[in-house]
Amino acid sequence: MPMRLRTLSLSVFAALLGAPLAHAVEGMWVPQQLPEIAGPLKQAGLELSPEQLADLTGDPMGAVVALGGCTASFVSPQGLVVTNHHCAYGAIQLNSTAEKNLIKEGFNAATPAEELSAGPNARVFVLDEITDVTAEAKAAIAAAPNALARTRALEAFEKKLVAECESEPGYRCRLYSFFGGNTYRLFKNLEIRDVRLAYAPPGSVGKYGGDIDNWMWPRHTGDFAFYRAYVGKDGKPAPFSPDNVPYQPKHWLKIADKPLGAGDFVMVAGYPGSTNRYALAAEFDHTAQTVYPETIRHYRNLIGMIEEAGRKDPDIQVKYASNMAGWNNYAKNYEGQLEGFKRIDAAAQKHAEEAAVLAWLKGQGRKGREALQAHAKLVQLLEQSKATRSRDYTLAMFNNTGVVGAATQLYRLSLEKAKPDAEREPGFQQRDLPTIEGAMKQLERRYVPAMDRQLQAYWLNEYIKLPAAQRVPAVDQWLGGNDAVAVERALDRLAATKLGSTEERLKWLSADRAAFEASDDPAIQYAVAVLPTLLKLEQERKVRAGENLAARPVFLQAVADYKKSQGKAVYPDANLSLRITFGNVTGYEPKDGMAYTPFTTLEGIVAKDTGEEPFDSPKALLDAVKAKRYGGLEDPRIGSVPVNFLSDLDITGGNSGSPVLDAQGKLVGLAFDGNWESVSSNWVFDPKMTRMIAVDARYMRWIMQEVYPAPQLLQEMGITR
Amino acid sequence: MPMRLRTLSLSVFAALLGAPLAHAVEGMWVPQQLPEIAGPLKQAGLELSPEQLADLTGDPMGAVVALGGCTASFVSPQGLVVTNHHCAYGAIQLNSTAEKNLIKEGFNAATPAEELSAGPNARVFVLDEITDVTAEAKAAIAAAPNALARTRALEAFEKKLVAECESEPGYRCRLYSFFGGNTYRLFKNLEIRDVRLAYAPPGSVGKYGGDIDNWMWPRHTGDFAFYRAYVGKDGKPAPFSPDNVPYQPKHWLKIADKPLGAGDFVMVAGYPGSTNRYALAAEFDHTAQTVYPETIRHYRNLIGMIEEAGRKDPDIQVKYASNMAGWNNYAKNYEGQLEGFKRIDAAAQKHAEEAAVLAWLKGQGRKGREALQAHAKLVQLLEQSKATRSRDYTLAMFNNTGVVGAATQLYRLSLEKAKPDAEREPGFQQRDLPTIEGAMKQLERRYVPAMDRQLQAYWLNEYIKLPAAQRVPAVDQWLGGNDAVAVERALDRLAATKLGSTEERLKWLSADRAAFEASDDPAIQYAVAVLPTLLKLEQERKVRAGENLAARPVFLQAVADYKKSQGKAVYPDANLSLRITFGNVTGYEPKDGMAYTPFTTLEGIVAKDTGEEPFDSPKALLDAVKAKRYGGLEDPRIGSVPVNFLSDLDITGGNSGSPVLDAQGKLVGLAFDGNWESVSSNWVFDPKMTRMIAVDARYMRWIMQEVYPAPQLLQEMGITR
Repeated sequence: MPMRLRTLSLSVFAALLGAPLAHAVEGMWVPQQLPEIAGPLKQAGLELSPEQLADLTGDPMGAVVALGGCTASFVSPQGLVVTNHHCAYGAIQLNSTAEKNLIKEGFNAATPAEELSAGPNARVFVLDEITDVTAEAKAAIAAAPNALARTRALEAFEKKLVAECESEPGYRCRLYSFFGGNTYRLFKNLEIRDVRLAYAPPGSVGKYGGDIDNWMWPRHTGDFAFYRAYVGKDGKPAPFSPDNVPYQPKHWLKIADKPLGAGDFVMVAGYPGSTNRYALAAEFDHTAQTVYPETIRHYRNLIGMIEEAGRKDPDIQVKYASNMAGWNNYAKNYEGQLEGFKRIDAAAQKHAEEAAVLAWLKGQGRKGREALQAHAKLVQLLEQSKATRSRDYTLAMFNNTGVVGAATQLYRLSLEKAKPDAEREPGFQQRDLPTIEGAMKQLERRYVPAMDRQLQAYWLNEYIKLPAAQRVPAVDQWLGGNDAVAVERALDRLAATKLGSTEERLKWLSADRAAFEASDDPAIQYAVAVLPTLLKLEQERKVRAGENLAARPVFLQAVADYKKSQGKAVYPDANLSLRITFGNVTGYEPKDGMAYTPFTTLEGIVAKDTGEEPFDSPKALLDAVKAKRYGGLEDPRIGSVPVNFLSDLDITGGNSGSPVLDAQGKLVGLAFDGNWESVSSNWVFDPKMTRMIAVDARYMRWIMQEVYPAPQLLQEMGITR
Repeated sequence: MPMRLRTLSLSVFAALLGAPLAHAVEGMWVPQQLPEIAGPLKQAGLELSPEQLADLTGDPMGAVVALGGCTASFVSPQGLVVTNHHCAYGAIQLNSTAEKNLIKEGFNAATPAEELSAGPNARVFVLDEITDVTAEAKAAIAAAPNALARTRALEAFEKKLVAECESEPGYRCRLYSFFGGNTYRLFKNLEIRDVRLAYAPPGSVGKYGGDIDNWMWPRHTGDFAFYRAYVGKDGKPAPFSPDNVPYQPKHWLKIADKPLGAGDFVMVAGYPGSTNRYALAAEFDHTAQTVYPETIRHYRNLIGMIEEAGRKDPDIQVKYASNMAGWNNYAKNYEGQLEGFKRIDAAAQKHAEEAAVLAWLKGQGRKGREALQAHAKLVQLLEQSKATRSRDYTLAMFNNTGVVGAATQLYRLSLEKAKPDAEREPGFQQRDLPTIEGAMKQLERRYVPAMDRQLQAYWLNEYIKLPAAQRVPAVDQWLGGNDAVAVERALDRLAATKLGSTEERLKWLSADRAAFEASDDPAIQYAVAVLPTLLKLEQERKVRAGENLAARPVFLQAVADYKKSQGKAVYPDANLSLRITFGNVTGYEPKDGMAYTPFTTLEGIVAKDTGEEPFDSPKALLDAVKAKRYGGLEDPRIGSVPVNFLSDLDITGGNSGSPVLDAQGKLVGLAFDGNWESVSSNWVFDPKMTRMIAVDARYMRWIMQEVYPAPQLLQEMGITR
């Protein structure tokens, strides 16, 4: 869970460490900026040449891969991949049975032949090429006559570009927009589709501390696991086959031979998902004052409902565990962000910063006018979307619930499939069909009719509370009223749907529009009745998106120019594309009179252990620590083997599993979480308190030596004792 | 509250501070040991000569005084005394009225004439002389024919010695036993009886953090206040009189001029109350397994009862607040000790240490035999007292409750008064009468009939649960049964007592035995019926005490010899007599990955502030911090004015208010608490985690400069800016 949706960061506070370090600069740098930050990299302690680092398909950067939502890296010439335990969690779960619970017991393939498929959707993306397509994208947008056309022009441009790029088999391509549309880059990745689980420590190591320690320090989580990437005998990506062979990457990381210590240089390359550091002050206010509090309220309500139902029905407990975990994680994250906003007075910082930009623009007279107008336009667009936010959110949540969600998506698919592939809505193209099919299958593991009805009821009851002006005629008509009685009647009707059956859902995957419109299934009838309105609302959003496409790049360029005028290096918000962040190993002072030190140790695991999940270390671990069997991996500076460490790097959700490299580009750990105080850095960076939490490579080695031995992998990684 | 009953300590752990310090040695050294620890004192950083320090009536030690339960020190030639706010709490409360709440508002006498009497029981004890009387005491004990006679011989010796010593008017004397009776010393103190309150900061400074922060770090409490000692015009102690004049001490402390920093030498002189570091392993076990858990259970029950009653009756809330605070503090302390015992595996340490002593003695053959026999005897005595512990505890608690307690004490007094003063039970001599009278008066502020009945009921119901063999015929007979019905009848009878009236209680102070035995007051009838038995039980305890007087010195001498043979310096358990402890300013690691830094700062006060008690700083303070009005008192090493600091000194309850001196013997702060992890050091010293918490003298100055100004006192202390 941790780094799937969170923010971390770079700064330096090192009162703890005797010699205070200079304040580092925040930043999720795009690879193209490496020459620009060569000076600060050297200053922080990098011993490689920045030029070597800038070669993204060279050593060491070529070893860094994406998993889709997580980051990973090659660590052997035979396609061995290391990432977080929580990134491999789905694959570990998938291969667990009632008899053999791999989450609990761990998994260790003695030979590659014993490795287990991580599932048909598991991927390893190896970066092949990044192409700047800004000029073409901007030209396509500029040629469009109005806002809606701009959105569609960009969609069309993207689809065309991606289709061309993916015409070479085995590749997956994606267009990324930077700085609100000031730069566009196409990423071309080799898409390895046969991914296998090679090693996972027992859950009592891999997720030690569980939800209780999530985002917390001091931390003692062995959050690592190994995959292996396989390709066809021709060396090309292929779906799972026993005949496939290990992929031989051009580059793989070497395990560090120099012990990492406090103050040392570290860097991370990975795929951070999303930050909002360039949002408008008004957008920040809206989020802090409305979106987060409202979302927290809804999630806490849903969690409460499911907890109560789950106490009576263990099936509900199991099937909704994943929903619950997600809502819990988001709610806790948003609460942490709100807490952080208060701590650093983020609103004041945000407003002061924006006021400075606007004043600077005003001071430029004519030259600044366009950006000022763009700013005003963006504020106006925000106001528009705020006006219908409750409605849009409520409808989206209802339309995403269980069978109603399936019906709506299936009917939409039938509409889209009637069009040529290139004209379809993104997400409903030929290339997206496997994903849709996967979702239709997966629903069976996440659906209990009685609970689904309660969730439908929750959102419909939210719907009827909306002011009349916000309600949608098509929904009202389908409901046949605006009160609890109408809701109950609608729920009774929906209960007769057959879409609770996986077979039924898969059948409808290939149905045409006419079949839907003739169906007497009540969920499908809902979709047919309401989708035209939803498409209309979607179109309104696309109009606003088109307005945004014109205004946001102009204003964000002005923000970047202003920052540069202040002598600050500027990097774009995270957008799932490859980023580099660097800094130093360092603790922080969470409050006056208290400090978090940068390393935890084996002894801290034992001190935390209660014998009860999530603090139930394997006996082998407890015994080894008590006997001080450090296996040559202890660091005299801390008197034990380091477990997790803190550094002032700037990461966020998506960076999970990112390799942490030392000054020589060697692997010293894996990023897996940010600290609690960092979550608000998603919006406003807090250099004092934002820290990355990583698992130390020496702890990984120690586990593979002393606790859950995997000498074959240690040897494969070139570790000899 | 804090240091009235707790344990703190000396050690060194300084990973935080860059340069790790050597491990200091635990120790509450008696002044006579100063030559013995001269080397370690120098090594820790003392710049004064140990000889200067050893002069207890010279400079600086002559400035240290006892308040009875707290420590204090002179800080001006005009008798100005500084101590903790919580030590002056009673005096501040006493002078508060409905209109003017000095606890809340603080108190600042612009001139000495405005100073307020701290009450008739307030005392400042100035040490005059310490005399070793070991030989005489031991001779008196040795001459006694049996155990009971030994106890009585020591009592008689003590009474005679004290009476002689106090024959000089204005002095108060006390005999202290060290090492279980291996050494006896008589302390002669000037007893100053006119003590006045000169200054107390507002409660939101003086007890900032309240019970929540009690024993906690990070801490931000301005726990200081000023008294002034007054004497008659002849310079001799006298009761309060407007004609009295400030006492002119021979020595007073100077405020430090060198800023205190991490690692610096500090020492404390004070009057620690009680530790049990030389207890037997079996005594430790009994305490950890039975006494503490049982006491916690009872106190929590009592607290629960009073809380519930207090919700309906605010009078109960007010009158029992002090009881509640005491029980809460003890229960929390015992819980902390049990937690600490577990953390450091105190039982194992205790048993290992004792086993080593016993083995060492066995190895000495004939020479070790006496000590081994003494050990066996002590274990046997413990077993004896364990056998009747529940009964003794229950009876003691019942006989100490409200009106029953008053009746029992008053009747006992009538019996004792019939004897010559020198033969009376200690505590019932002429010199003790003011204390007894004070207690009889004070009951009116701590007594509500309905609550008193509930407390009686609680203990009587505990009594009837005792096994038959443990019950006491006199109590059974008085109860007239062994069930809830009998208890109710007894409570109904007791309800008719008139001892709830202060006037009535004071009347009985002068009554003779016959008057008690003729009384029809049900509480007095209880006392008359039961006291003969209680005296018999007391005599049994005195027999055991006499056995102890023979055995314990022998075994503790062996323990001391063993420790010396191991190269360890040995100091006796705390016993309310003057002790010196020294070490360095240093934080600690409460757990893996986390550190407490040695200083807190003004900014930490603001960060904690909620506007609600106990985190409701005065506006003047918040404003001054926000404006960074440091008044020249900031320390560049922490970037602010220090508020509280940690050091590895060895203190316990009774040390509250002790001056903290720097390497030059100048005042750098006041001890006021120990940390949570230190409470178990009462039994087994934990050098890693035992820390003293002190208020920094610079914070005291800052409060008196910027927040609640007292320029007259700053000037009197010789502070010029």
